[in-house]
Amino acid sequence: MTNIELYHHFREQNKDRARLLIKCPDQPGIVSAVSTFLMNNGANIIESSQYSADPEGGNFFIRMEFSCLDLHNRRIEIEQSFHEVSTKFNMEFQFLYVSDVKKTAIFVSKEQHCLMELLWEWQNGDLMMDIGCIISNNENAEQLAKSLNIPFYYIPANKDIRAQVEERQLEILKEHDIELIILARYMQILTPNFVSHYPNQIINIHHSFLPAFIGARPYERAYARGVKLIGATSHYVTNDLDEGPIIEQGVERVSHHDKVDDLKRIGRNIERSVLARAVKWHLQDRVIVDGNKTIVF
Amino acid sequence: MTNIELYHHFREQNKDRARLLIKCPDQPGIVSAVSTFLMNNGANIIESSQYSADPEGGNFFIRMEFSCLDLHNRRIEIEQSFHEVSTKFNMEFQFLYVSDVKKTAIFVSKEQHCLMELLWEWQNGDLMMDIGCIISNNENAEQLAKSLNIPFYYIPANKDIRAQVEERQLEILKEHDIELIILARYMQILTPNFVSHYPNQIINIHHSFLPAFIGARPYERAYARGVKLIGATSHYVTNDLDEGPIIEQGVERVSHHDKVDDLKRIGRNIERSVLARAVKWHLQDRVIVDGNKTIVF
Amino acid sequence: MTNIELYHHFREQNKDRARLLIKCPDQPGIVSAVSTFLMNNGANIIESSQYSADPEGGNFFIRMEFSCLDLHNRRIEIEQSFHEVSTKFNMEFQFLYVSDVKKTAIFVSKEQHCLMELLWEWQNGDLMMDIGCIISNNENAEQLAKSLNIPFYYIPANKDIRAQVEERQLEILKEHDIELIILARYMQILTPNFVSHYPNQIINIHHSFLPAFIGARPYERAYARGVKLIGATSHYVTNDLDEGPIIEQGVERVSHHDKVDDLKRIGRNIERSVLARAVKWHLQDRVIVDGNKTIVF
Amino acid sequence: MTNIELYHHFREQNKDRARLLIKCPDQPGIVSAVSTFLMNNGANIIESSQYSADPEGGNFFIRMEFSCLDLHNRRIEIEQSFHEVSTKFNMEFQFLYVSDVKKTAIFVSKEQHCLMELLWEWQNGDLMMDIGCIISNNENAEQLAKSLNIPFYYIPANKDIRAQVEERQLEILKEHDIELIILARYMQILTPNFVSHYPNQIINIHHSFLPAFIGARPYERAYARGVKLIGATSHYVTNDLDEGPIIEQGVERVSHHDKVDDLKRIGRNIERSVLARAVKWHLQDRVIVDGNKTIVF
Repeated sequence: MTNIELYHHFREQNKDRARLLIKCPDQPGIVSAVSTFLMNNGANIIESSQYSADPEGGNFFIRMEFSCLDLHNRRIEIEQSFHEVSTKFNMEFQFLYVSDVKKTAIFVSKEQHCLMELLWEWQNGDLMMDIGCIISNNENAEQLAKSLNIPFYYIPANKDIRAQVEERQLEILKEHDIELIILARYMQILTPNFVSHYPNQIINIHHSFLPAFIGARPYERAYARGVKLIGATSHYVTNDLDEGPIIEQGVERVSHHDKVDDLKRIGRNIERSVLARAVKWHLQDRVIVDGNKTIVF
Repeated sequence: MTNIELYHHFREQNKDRARLLIKCPDQPGIVSAVSTFLMNNGANIIESSQYSADPEGGNFFIRMEFSCLDLHNRRIEIEQSFHEVSTKFNMEFQFLYVSDVKKTAIFVSKEQHCLMELLWEWQNGDLMMDIGCIISNNENAEQLAKSLNIPFYYIPANKDIRAQVEERQLEILKEHDIELIILARYMQILTPNFVSHYPNQIINIHHSFLPAFIGARPYERAYARGVKLIGATSHYVTNDLDEGPIIEQGVERVSHHDKVDDLKRIGRNIERSVLARAVKWHLQDRVIVDGNKTIVF
Repeated sequence: MTNIELYHHFREQNKDRARLLIKCPDQPGIVSAVSTFLMNNGANIIESSQYSADPEGGNFFIRMEFSCLDLHNRRIEIEQSFHEVSTKFNMEFQFLYVSDVKKTAIFVSKEQHCLMELLWEWQNGDLMMDIGCIISNNENAEQLAKSLNIPFYYIPANKDIRAQVEERQLEILKEHDIELIILARYMQILTPNFVSHYPNQIINIHHSFLPAFIGARPYERAYARGVKLIGATSHYVTNDLDEGPIIEQGVERVSHHDKVDDLKRIGRNIERSVLARAVKWHLQDRVIVDGNKTIVF
Repeated sequence: MTNIELYHHFREQNKDRARLLIKCPDQPGIVSAVSTFLMNNGANIIESSQYSADPEGGNFFIRMEFSCLDLHNRRIEIEQSFHEVSTKFNMEFQFLYVSDVKKTAIFVSKEQHCLMELLWEWQNGDLMMDIGCIISNNENAEQLAKSLNIPFYYIPANKDIRAQVEERQLEILKEHDIELIILARYMQILTPNFVSHYPNQIINIHHSFLPAFIGARPYERAYARGVKLIGATSHYVTNDLDEGPIIEQGVERVSHHDKVDDLKRIGRNIERSVLARAVKWHLQDRVIVDGNKTIVF
């Protein structure tokens, strides 16, 4: 199947599926109210996960995936009638429809292993997203993007022209209705202005096991410290460098035999699998940001 | 704290906590009905996990942990009033009370690493169980059992006297009201008669990654085959040797350097941690047997 | 860098590097004799690994990687003069030159994840091999092969035409001077005749943790058994199905939530990384076959 | 077997075994010289591992384990005659005799899981050491130590009396001829004076994945940061807190469900296995300190 055929198949298969994400102060009766609401609206709960930050007075989080006949035509009605429940329990909530495949942009620099992995899992149907564009400050991914009919934008970038570069990037993102930006080893720092346009919608992969080795050259520093495991961390981008909510982490064993280049080579495999998992969970609406942490349902 | 103090503390802390386990044909409205029932009975859901074997016509499983004021005095009332719900949805169900610490018996033979781990995690408060007795066909654990005030029964066993041995064991188990038997590397085969007294209440640790190396001498056979990972499997005991529902498995990497004795040494660490995890999940009522498989919530 | 440039760079960088692999009856003096031989020939040992199957009368194995000025011109002289040592200790041995990049053929069927991984690591310089050709019984990899300038042969195959198919394949392999065949999820069984042409030179990936689930449909059988970990195994092909010497294995955790399709999806990631590691170790001359086992230095 | 019997058996079995550890500037001919020396002295190399920090001008490290008839009586002769080789290559070296079981002291505070694991593996024969004494600033391990006939010293400790405490500890260590101090979650900081008496002979377990969460309360900080993996690190103690050469590290997966107490519970299992591995490798003379890093052969 081509990716266009994959989409159509996926959308058709999931046209009656949605996810309801809720955050509210913990109190008795929430599950009862939500599940009764869904039942009364003819929905069948397929999967449900919940989390009480602190049963005595913290927040309560729930993700319910449900199916409902003729969902497409009943969206507005269901969302509106949920206000009664949400008001009673003081809920923040979102209905997310599985057939609304998310539009994403992939940012990349010279190293392409994370881009390759994302494209591979996407072609394979494992990452259900609509890649609106690839933006790079390096030309080397152009051929690949074109061969897959993905719009490619080569935008040289450096510290001195950051403002113009981001302005251009924001235009492109708007043009493509991007809902999620994936930094697949994009080696430029984003300004607070840029980040503010996409709160909890930018996923980065940092090439260390955070909070160890925040910042530049983590493999060199891991080598210098003589660690026996190296790692990678995928997190939402905030204005504090490498300090955003962590979605996923992974590690691999290394030994004294491994030089910096070996750590980078081993690290590439960790980076691409950690990033792909984090993106997949986001696309499946499994990640809820709670302060500077994530709940991954 | 001594273990007696640990119990008292644990029971006091959890006197209002229970778990409701349900299995029933899947259909809309189950979560709504159960959560509404709990709410109407003043219970607050602390943790909830569910599983649809197949949303189109399979079974539905749910485990809800809840707290409820004055639970001890309201048990009978709650259980009785639940019959309305359970009848409507054709449910098999169990209410399990966290403060009813399960009475267990540990069976062991010569090798004591699994017994040691269980006792260690028990002393530490990580395995909340009431060890009614230790039964062994070897005297070497007697000292240890006595030092912890656990009744110890030395019952020599072999193929020829299996019937008498099991008769004696069953007496002891009845005497101590045992609800869970843990085979901590007990090297005798149990008869169908014995097993029939404790359906899904006997947990074994097999020293291989099942279904590889079913039966005797798995490390010798793993060595002969030249595998690069060895494992251990904890499962409920049925009448098919090493074929019961798997609860947990673990593996570790080995190399050509490792001889059979090394595999055994490495394997001991896998066995004890895998068994301890399986027992913990059983004690927390997280394991539901479904045919020849387990659901581990 | 293109792959042609990568080769040139790699060959130039490694023109003075070689590996000496030895198997002989264990006895004192082997390391001394070999290392003294290398020193007398102006070679510097870079890496050395050894293994005594059994210090009392078993075999001894050693792999020494060394560098030696002007190695290219001194190959014949060094190999010939080593006969004195090898005869004394009754050695089987091989000198392997790092700049002689191995010619490989990749066999593939419909599923392409293993092929993709091999090509990706190859483009990246992590798998240093010269891919002579890709042979498939499915047309879908043709485009990809052509875009990388790798000869692609589409040879429909099934049980009934096995003899002709293999005859044609053997011709192609000969034509390309293939030294290593990689079965990247090639779903046809090879005949003893075919295998006999490439002893310990055919690497397969089996989609289970051998010896569990030998043969067809391992994920379906893993699902039916309810295992909590699934795996993949890379091994040399012999005439006993899935019984050849194991090079590498890997596993991932699964749960009751995972259906057969989930196991396949998770399994694809294990398969591709396990196969890539096994191939890399073979290409680096790290794998010695000893009976039905491997020594991986 | 009792531990006394285990020792006798082990010493008898290994009376002809030794390890030679060497560090010297890299140059051709080292392996040849050392292996020829051993052969000429009637020794058979059982295991050999080497490492070139940098083949162009760095240091070279080698660990050779060998057996040699009548080793006990030939120690002095062999060591003296090695000086010719060591002088030529400017070597730092050590001959270590396997039957000289190392005398160790275990320091512990309130938490006993690491102590328990060490004692368990020691009783089991997996950690071949002679435990000279257990020193604690808490009385709770006294019973256990006495039951195993290990001298126990209760020495209350705090910041204000550090000098006296360490003076007393040093006396005890001298009295017992201690060669290795194991800090099994000993929660007092050691002064530079104390550390200077045991360079690279004090092994600590830090309850985080260093260099993340250096210092106090690492689990609390890991929880606050929302990491998805937690770890533990075993390292030699130097005068920079948690900055000494790392011997081993381990991690386990955690989730948003895990509170600080869960992290501590999960962490205890990581800590004890990581510390036990580090201690085992030290006892087997596998660890060479090189600057602020370790080579683990």
